[in-house]
Amino acid sequence: MSTPLGTGTSPSDADNPQPASIASIAAEAGVSIPTVSKVLNGRPDVAADTRARVESVIEQRRYRRRRARESSRPALIDLVFHEMHSAWATEIIRGVEQAAAAERAAVVLSELGGEHRPRREWFDDLLTRRPLGVILVLAGLDEEQRNQLTTRTIPFVVLDTAGEPQPGVPTVGSANWSGGLAATRHLISLGHSRIAVISGPTTMMCSRARVDGYRSALDEAALPVDPDLVRHGDFYVHGGYDHGLALLSRPDRPTAIFAGSDFQALGVMRAARELGLSIPGDLSIVGYDDLEVTEWIGPPLTTVRQPLRDMATTAAEMVFTLARGERPRNERIDLATELIVRESTAPPPS
Amino acid sequence: MSTPLGTGTSPSDADNPQPASIASIAAEAGVSIPTVSKVLNGRPDVAADTRARVESVIEQRRYRRRRARESSRPALIDLVFHEMHSAWATEIIRGVEQAAAAERAAVVLSELGGEHRPRREWFDDLLTRRPLGVILVLAGLDEEQRNQLTTRTIPFVVLDTAGEPQPGVPTVGSANWSGGLAATRHLISLGHSRIAVISGPTTMMCSRARVDGYRSALDEAALPVDPDLVRHGDFYVHGGYDHGLALLSRPDRPTAIFAGSDFQALGVMRAARELGLSIPGDLSIVGYDDLEVTEWIGPPLTTVRQPLRDMATTAAEMVFTLARGERPRNERIDLATELIVRESTAPPPS
Repeated sequence: MSTPLGTGTSPSDADNPQPASIASIAAEAGVSIPTVSKVLNGRPDVAADTRARVESVIEQRRYRRRRARESSRPALIDLVFHEMHSAWATEIIRGVEQAAAAERAAVVLSELGGEHRPRREWFDDLLTRRPLGVILVLAGLDEEQRNQLTTRTIPFVVLDTAGEPQPGVPTVGSANWSGGLAATRHLISLGHSRIAVISGPTTMMCSRARVDGYRSALDEAALPVDPDLVRHGDFYVHGGYDHGLALLSRPDRPTAIFAGSDFQALGVMRAARELGLSIPGDLSIVGYDDLEVTEWIGPPLTTVRQPLRDMATTAAEMVFTLARGERPRNERIDLATELIVRESTAPPPS
Repeated sequence: MSTPLGTGTSPSDADNPQPASIASIAAEAGVSIPTVSKVLNGRPDVAADTRARVESVIEQRRYRRRRARESSRPALIDLVFHEMHSAWATEIIRGVEQAAAAERAAVVLSELGGEHRPRREWFDDLLTRRPLGVILVLAGLDEEQRNQLTTRTIPFVVLDTAGEPQPGVPTVGSANWSGGLAATRHLISLGHSRIAVISGPTTMMCSRARVDGYRSALDEAALPVDPDLVRHGDFYVHGGYDHGLALLSRPDRPTAIFAGSDFQALGVMRAARELGLSIPGDLSIVGYDDLEVTEWIGPPLTTVRQPLRDMATTAAEMVFTLARGERPRNERIDLATELIVRESTAPPPS
């Protein structure tokens, strides 16, 4: 199998010893050389069936565009969000900016899920820009698009905030399981034994990893896991509010909630306020992410810091390494999460 | 005077009837045509004194580069922050993204005050990229740089969050004075008469405009302005906390504070908590900006919405208009601010 990264400049298969060239691709597809060049550059003025035929030959022949650093072209790195969310996005952007500034590259930003940007056009424009590489944040490309990047020798790295590395794709993530473990251990160490967790959607592996860390901490302390106290929200305020209200209205309500995200923690806080419960007197809460504002709300939130900025810098450095045709030392890196203890956690009411 | 915008493609002065060309610039500066071209494109391989001589002739002759939309070049719009701040930046980025997607342009992002990006190199790289235009957020260019954009026919628009339009520069801002007026009128209408204001630095005109709105609202209601109750912070949490603590420790403490920014409102809230004052029972607080999180804190914050996203979209549309060689209908637009009433304001304690 050849690498899906396209860091090499020629095919390596023994059964295909002759490196493909634009000329050979053109001949085999029955089109002119400029047409192949247009397809490689994402230019729109090629008929759909012609484009499909050329792409197919490019893929079969494992063509890899040679990449010379052209000094007259601007050095760009593309940062692609599925959707941009507030404080989160800024941390990631700043991390990429920092690495890009060191390489004197400019950061091109797009949001795919957002404002009516058609995926196909966006992708063609990406090929026209010919960035040094691409960082994807929760924005997976389909296999065809990955192949197209590979054939253009445009490396890409996934900044994995969801805990779902794709096999063979370089990825920077963070230690979700350890984060869930640390949050729950902290609550246990304060004396809590009735601890609920509100994680994110079960479709996101990071949600599952955090819950598994929670389970392991309980198990380690020989505490039972009550299935009624394990909830899955949407990572936003309403998820925390709805599940918080349900959990805290129970006669046997938990004395502590690991809220799975800072936004969900805000929702749980609101539910607690509405029920007249004080934090941390009646209820301890741990968030996840360490958004800037969590330090300033009342009470300041104990949370698990996800090192978004460092993750972004690491992903960008990986892209630049790949763009130089080198292999990064590791292609799957999880950065450590860290428990930040503030004032929303205390021993349970006696 | 010629326009500082560079939307024209030739000089219009009567005393300079012969349009300057790259060839005439080269001849006058005593350099080759490729050297002039390098200077225009921000290429580094030109000696400093040669570059200065060429720039000087370009400027004197009011040369304007002809700009053909080259289909092989990617369409870019540069968004430049002095410094990126959390939720703020995301709103602005999304606004620009939206307008850029409609024009099928990619957004290039940079932060000048931030991570060690040398200004000179950044500017050269900008000229190399040749974006359709530039949006500056609190990042003024010096006159030389403005001239260089003008000669390259790269239009720029200032997204003015500081309330300081530069003469002759197209600007999108918001109605700071009206925002201060609305915040203070709201508190007066609830029955408050001892109202403090904590605005931002006096060096930022938006700070002064908001305080002037506050004064006018008091004046309109025939209430005196107590100079001790007019404070200037730094727009961040600590500014609100420090001034809040000082104001609320006074024997004749105010019953309401217009906090000038949402972050300062968070600081005032913390000061109030530490002094055992309840919000809004003992103290009403109004913020400014309407950051996403202000809806979710306890209590949800009454604030003045600054329409950052709309401002950004408007600025980007203005850039695209200028890039087409057209004049925007208005070159100085202030979008309306809006009071959002939530739960941090109530009648004063009786």
